[in-house]
Amino acid sequence: MTHVAHSRVIPSLPRIAISMGDPAGVGPELCCHMAADPVLNAHSQITVYGDPALLQRVAEHCQIPLPSRIHAITTPIAAHTITPGVVSSAAGTMAIASLDAAIDACLGGQEDALVTAPIHKGAVHAAGFRHPGHTEYLAQRCGKAKVAMALTGPSLTVALATVHRSLASVAQALTAQELISVGNLLHQALRMRLRRPPRLACVALNPHAGENGLFGDEEVRIIRPALAHLRAAGIDISDPLSPDSAFTPKLRKLYDGHLCCYHDQGLIPFKMLHFHDGVNWTLGLPIIRTSPDHGTAFDIAWRGTVDQRSMRAAVSLATQLTSD
Amino acid sequence: MTHVAHSRVIPSLPRIAISMGDPAGVGPELCCHMAADPVLNAHSQITVYGDPALLQRVAEHCQIPLPSRIHAITTPIAAHTITPGVVSSAAGTMAIASLDAAIDACLGGQEDALVTAPIHKGAVHAAGFRHPGHTEYLAQRCGKAKVAMALTGPSLTVALATVHRSLASVAQALTAQELISVGNLLHQALRMRLRRPPRLACVALNPHAGENGLFGDEEVRIIRPALAHLRAAGIDISDPLSPDSAFTPKLRKLYDGHLCCYHDQGLIPFKMLHFHDGVNWTLGLPIIRTSPDHGTAFDIAWRGTVDQRSMRAAVSLATQLTSD
Repeated sequence: MTHVAHSRVIPSLPRIAISMGDPAGVGPELCCHMAADPVLNAHSQITVYGDPALLQRVAEHCQIPLPSRIHAITTPIAAHTITPGVVSSAAGTMAIASLDAAIDACLGGQEDALVTAPIHKGAVHAAGFRHPGHTEYLAQRCGKAKVAMALTGPSLTVALATVHRSLASVAQALTAQELISVGNLLHQALRMRLRRPPRLACVALNPHAGENGLFGDEEVRIIRPALAHLRAAGIDISDPLSPDSAFTPKLRKLYDGHLCCYHDQGLIPFKMLHFHDGVNWTLGLPIIRTSPDHGTAFDIAWRGTVDQRSMRAAVSLATQLTSD
Repeated sequence: MTHVAHSRVIPSLPRIAISMGDPAGVGPELCCHMAADPVLNAHSQITVYGDPALLQRVAEHCQIPLPSRIHAITTPIAAHTITPGVVSSAAGTMAIASLDAAIDACLGGQEDALVTAPIHKGAVHAAGFRHPGHTEYLAQRCGKAKVAMALTGPSLTVALATVHRSLASVAQALTAQELISVGNLLHQALRMRLRRPPRLACVALNPHAGENGLFGDEEVRIIRPALAHLRAAGIDISDPLSPDSAFTPKLRKLYDGHLCCYHDQGLIPFKMLHFHDGVNWTLGLPIIRTSPDHGTAFDIAWRGTVDQRSMRAAVSLATQLTSD
């Protein structure tokens, strides 16, 4: 009688790179929390990209275990010079180095997805960073990819056709080209995630969707032609919906994602629903990238009290997306 | 021994005038429902301003009792010529006559408050009405009062500094004068309702409240000066809040009312929370006026299936406001 060993193929876990973010903010403690989370660790293999001495300081401060997998960055900055809650070019330098190392690893195939902890605009700019934020920098590092900003949570996903600009400049900046581009990216991203063609909502620019041109003609002149183009490409997207009813519980159930014309049109409803568990999802990059939907929270940095829900949701989504 | 009769002064119930609205819409059946509602009738004395024969037809159609108190309007229109769901100048004529009679009664002191059932813009315009809607007409009928549009529900009250205009024209239309005027009206209205000084939120125009002028300078140039003026008048109002966090559950709890810069900024969050029970409340009139936050709903007119929650909330609020 022969004993047959039952061998089981253990699939390798998705490898998630987390960049530490601004060391003076809540990024480092979030990294430690994520690396220590038993649920996340059951589904992914997390590596924190950052300064080991700094992470050690924060872990001790907050009484969280030090991550078992740290990819050490090299910078001229000594960890003991970083003060929590203080904007500095030194902190900015560390944040950029962490981000760069994590991007390199994703582009090089050593990691399957990137989750970025928050950076501080003032700090990275003081350290010589010349980009408005993570998203724009990632687009450039990834071969000038055409990207879009989306936010996603259990009850709503929004993608923005215009982002950080004054309300006065929104209407003139809204183009059919941009709506088509963002609509395409949202469609592709949701199809990958849901494994079926998604149903998209298009949110009009004007109140009551312009009421047949009475309050603005962008629906007729810009949005409808863009929708015709998207539909010709096989994308299931609604007519321009009156913004004030597009986000009601009833209409949310009909759609997998909302294509929005401007920042607050998407962000007001999104943050009402998902202030604590929303995820920032960059569409269009050749790598998977998510991040928590909050900033460095300098006021509570290194106290171990940061709300982990958004960061945990970002890691979960990144993990889910790698399996496609 | 003398028998002393214990007499109790029964306070007279607030007298609520309801205008029938467009007879081809859901207005007439809503009037019948309200007049038959035992809870509303325990707190108010409802009179429906409309065409008795038309109300009779609708009551029979929908199998609701005919209101016991009808103020009969006189028009050249025969009730049998009105078809549910059809836009017509005849219906518009009836709607205007109902509204006029109800306004007259409020201005003349025969009624304590006005609740208006929905009119149809196309129908009243076909009948010679030259005003954008109820609110503007009421302002003129009440001596060109300076009014503001507010919407209120259990978890949110919003007042709008600009209303029905294209998004492209909002920034140029937003003035300190208008913010001061609407802020004052919102303060006065909520003080009357709450019987204490209300706490108001001011919602910024631009994303992130302009991020110190990076995305628009209206916060600095227009909004902050208006707030300084309101505060000098003793009004408790916040700094311009980042629109995307102003409506989160946490911030909603801090404020009794939100002063909004444009239609969808207020209406997107409002309709997410109060699509079925929101009330349109006209601030600044010498009479109390509320209305349901929906239209004529021609597609379901005369079926008896209309959702009564918004209309019932409008009657309740009008009743509550008369007791001040």
